[in-house]
Order: sequence, then C-alpha cells, then structure tokens
Amino acid sequence: MRVLIALGGNAMTGPGGDASTESQQKAIARACERLADLVVAGHDIVLTHGNGPQVGNLLVKNEMAAGEVPPVPLDWCVAQTQATIGFTIQNSLTAALLARGEHRETAALVTRTVVDVEDPAFRRPTKPIGRYLPADRAQQLIDHGQHWEDRGERGWRRVVASPKPLEVLDVATMLALVSSGHVVIAAGGGGIPVVRASDGTLRGVEAVIDKDLTAALLARSLAADVLLIATDVEHVMVDFGTPQATALTQISAAELRAHARAGQFASGSMGPKVDAILGFVEGGGDRAVITSLDRITDGVSGSYGTVVDAATR
Amino acid sequence: MRVLIALGGNAMTGPGGDASTESQQKAIARACERLADLVVAGHDIVLTHGNGPQVGNLLVKNEMAAGEVPPVPLDWCVAQTQATIGFTIQNSLTAALLARGEHRETAALVTRTVVDVEDPAFRRPTKPIGRYLPADRAQQLIDHGQHWEDRGERGWRRVVASPKPLEVLDVATMLALVSSGHVVIAAGGGGIPVVRASDGTLRGVEAVIDKDLTAALLARSLAADVLLIATDVEHVMVDFGTPQATALTQISAAELRAHARAGQFASGSMGPKVDAILGFVEGGGDRAVITSLDRITDGVSGSYGTVVDAATR
Repeated sequence: MRVLIALGGNAMTGPGGDASTESQQKAIARACERLADLVVAGHDIVLTHGNGPQVGNLLVKNEMAAGEVPPVPLDWCVAQTQATIGFTIQNSLTAALLARGEHRETAALVTRTVVDVEDPAFRRPTKPIGRYLPADRAQQLIDHGQHWEDRGERGWRRVVASPKPLEVLDVATMLALVSSGHVVIAAGGGGIPVVRASDGTLRGVEAVIDKDLTAALLARSLAADVLLIATDVEHVMVDFGTPQATALTQISAAELRAHARAGQFASGSMGPKVDAILGFVEGGGDRAVITSLDRITDGVSGSYGTVVDAATR
Repeated sequence: MRVLIALGGNAMTGPGGDASTESQQKAIARACERLADLVVAGHDIVLTHGNGPQVGNLLVKNEMAAGEVPPVPLDWCVAQTQATIGFTIQNSLTAALLARGEHRETAALVTRTVVDVEDPAFRRPTKPIGRYLPADRAQQLIDHGQHWEDRGERGWRRVVASPKPLEVLDVATMLALVSSGHVVIAAGGGGIPVVRASDGTLRGVEAVIDKDLTAALLARSLAADVLLIATDVEHVMVDFGTPQATALTQISAAELRAHARAGQFASGSMGPKVDAILGFVEGGGDRAVITSLDRITDGVSGSYGTVVDAATR
C-alpha cells in the first residue's frame, strides 16, 4: 500500500519541545525504528513532519543576530527545517533498516506548498510561534511589520498567518521516486508557503502551513491508500478530561464529523488532525488513522488507533 | 547533453558577499536567466552551488543566540542553505522559463556527501569561515572545541575542516529525475558532510566540502558530458597581475596541469576550480569549462571560456 505518514513536531524533539541537535537526533532515531518496521512490512512510504519548535529556534536566532546579519523570512525558516530534519531522517532510517538487514533508497525533497495570497489568514494572523518577549521588544518588531499579541503574564508572542494549503508542488516528482523504490521525505512543516501570481510565477510568503492539512492534501494528490497522523496519543478521545472520556477506535467519517461539529476537539491540537483525516476520507481516500508513533504499523493495517475507513463512510 | 553546472557562492549573493534575502533573490534571479537559456538550448541540467556567505551568516546566528537556543553544527548549516538556495532557484528558474514560454519540472534534493573520518583535514582544519572576532571571544569558542586562528588586525577567525569528497549520495535519484525531465538542484555547498561507519551507518560531521571538488565528483558519477564551473571571470588566467597576463581558452589537460604545477593558480580561489575540471577530464569526462555566468551557454558548447576537451587530453 501507498502510505502517507505525518509525524508531529513532538516526534522530532525532546521532552518539552527541546530542539537541541542531540534531542532532535535521538527523537528522530526513535521514530525511524517504527518507520523501518513499516518499510519492512512492504509499504511505499511518503513521510512528512512538523517543525514548530525548530522554526521557533530559527526565529530567535534571526532576532538576536539581527544587528549583525540579515534575518531571513519565515518561508526560509521552514525551508531550513526541511533540510535538517530531512537528512537526519535519511541517516536514521538507513541505520534502522540496516539493523533489519534491509536497504531502501531515500530522498529528502525541498517542497513548496501553494497558498492563496487572498487567504483571510494573511489579514488576521493567529498562529502563535517562537518565544515570549517583553512588550517594549515586541513593539520594536511590530514596528518592523510583524504581528505580536499580549499573552498576559508570560509576555508577548508573535502570531503568523496559517493559510490553507491549496497545492503541494512536485507531486509528480514524489510519485516518480516512490515508484522507483524510494522512501520520500517531503513537505516538512506543511511545505514552504508560496503564492502564485497571475503570470504563473511563484514567490515565498511569510506564513506557516498546518502540516496535517498539507498531509491530507498531499495524501489525496498522491492517491495514497492510507493517511496516518502519528501523534503522542494512541486514540482520539471524546469527552476528554471527564469521567465519560472514551477512546475512538473504528469510526465512520459521519460520526467523527459529528463529534468535531460538537466541539469535541481542541482547535490548536486534535482539531486540525481530525479535520485532516476527515478531509482525506471525505475526499475519496480509503483509510485515515490517528495513533501514536509506536503503533503506526498496526495503524496502517487498520487494527489499532482511531481508524476511519471508506467502507464505513 | 547532460551538463553539471556549478555556481559560485558569489553568483548567489550581492556585492561583497551580501547575503540578505533580497540580495540572494536578486542574484539568483539573474543566474536563472542564464540557466533558462541553457535549458531552452535543450540540455539536461544538474545544478550545484556554493554557500560560503550563507553559512557564514548562520554561524553568526548560532553564536549570538547561543545563550537562548542551542546552536546547530556545521553540517546542519550546510543543509539549511541547500533548502533556502534550492527553493529560491526553483522559483526563479520557473519564472525565467515561463518568460521564455517554456516549462520544466525542477527538484531540489537535500544531498549528503561522504567524506573519510580519517581525512587529514579533520586533524588540521584550514578553511576560514564566518566573521572575525576579538581574541577573548574566540578563546571562549576554542574552549568549546572550535578551531580559531589569529588573523592579525581584523581579529580571529574560525577555521574548519574541508575534507575531500569521496561519494555523493543519491546519484541514482538524481539520474532518475534528470531522465524524467527535471532540472535537478543538488549537493549545494559541496553536500552535507557525512562519514560512514564500518557498519554502514552514516552521520553528519562538522566540516565544509569544496563545492567545485564535489561538482567534479558528481559530474563523473552522473556520467555528465560537460562540467561547467561558473565564476566571476570569463577565463582562467596565467601570469595573472603581470604584463604577460594571458587568458586560457582551448587548452589540453596536460598543459593546464603543467600551469597548475607551476603554481599559476591561487590555492583559495582558482586553484580548486582548475583541480576540479582537470579531475573531471582526467577521470574520463568529455569536456570541462570555467567561464563567467553570463557565458555558460557558449561555455557548454565549447566556444567560450577556458575549455578542456577530452579530444585534446
């Protein structure tokens, strides 16, 4: 089966989002153990991943060194994380496969995702990113055109646009590589946001794209059999935090959509993941799954996690 | 013809190595005009590029933000520049082709290059990189394991290992993409340096690889017909800076090798480029060229620049 796996940013960092080199390497090595199992199971895999803590660190560097070297825009920061996470996954996955007596070619593709320059997210940025700063420092950055919000006791925090992904570029390239046996790493951090002008040219824009929404779009574009979002919980829960808390296992798209409409899923965390898997199945995909990294092989086979099958659509 | 083009770091930045986002975009847009001409001429192109000023900036950011966010190693910095330069080339090349009524798929590959952990360069780092610092600050970084050298009046400067490239990974991937009509951007900055352990696993190492030596190795691995190194001069010169200064045009590998042995080419600038083109032709390549960015189409056809043809080997 052709499988699109989306790894959360937390699967790429240490506890508390620690994005030191060593913590990232260790977390990625752990993730690649599970990915190697999936490769050994015979699936064709395209892998995408989050990058929140990593981009946060790059923004701090931008800001602290601004007096000495020019900061780079947010789309460049996303690109930077695609490469560092991409080659670290390549090294770790190759090692995990070697330990299983297997070899597969890997390719890490720098990937752009088209968004609409008229997306309302550009007028009203809402995605918090990077570190907290005191009001006076935030004001300086506001004067430079950035959006910052007062978050109370912890200080001010930058908010950026998170427009809807419209098209992941280079899907044909990914398909060619998957067909020739590669594990493809692509569209990290939701892809580098670009807008398309009326003459067809593309340019990067300052934004971040939700990686789960990009994953759903990419899975459809690749005609993937399965979209699996690997996160830090084994199941999506309803009535979370109450005595009636229930794990969702096999569920129809209609039923899951009803839970979403009832406001069961937090907008900053499980909400976009549920939207993403529903988008995939409602758009014609066969199976979408949310489960923990440790259970991805069972998740892909549909035997574990929160599983939406087209058969129950 | 299958052509490997190596663009100098200076073709990617503004005057004086200015690596602001706008300067990089402007320089890359200019370079892509010439690359688009080459695409229109019907050649299959793999493109590689330098990254010196860009890596220099990343090191400054690492250093200035070290109290707040963890610095990343040099191999990660190289990776970061592959992605930012890579997608900027993709956008610009697509635009330049559109203006010519043409379209070609592009792919920017995160690329690793294998070096030998026993390479003497690791014991005696010699490649200067990044900004100058006062002695006391340099000493702090030396205490953290870095190598810094006293460069006199301007202060201290970091020196890093520049080991010889042994193998560019993912050559099969590049060939598959070129064969299916892609312009491939790969091995930027000489590639992300990795070493291979006896068990076959790979890990990144702190080093930078000469991009022209990697270009020559990659051109041979790809069985390219032509290796062209685009730089800021139209010809290699002998007796440079004297009244007898002469531009080299068509020249045999033996004659060029003799000039190199006679110390005609500066070790930090033209020397490695001459070594690279000689390495390609002496290793079985058909044609290697050094010329300016503006003349690359004529260079590839052998009618301009310093041209070493196998026929005259």
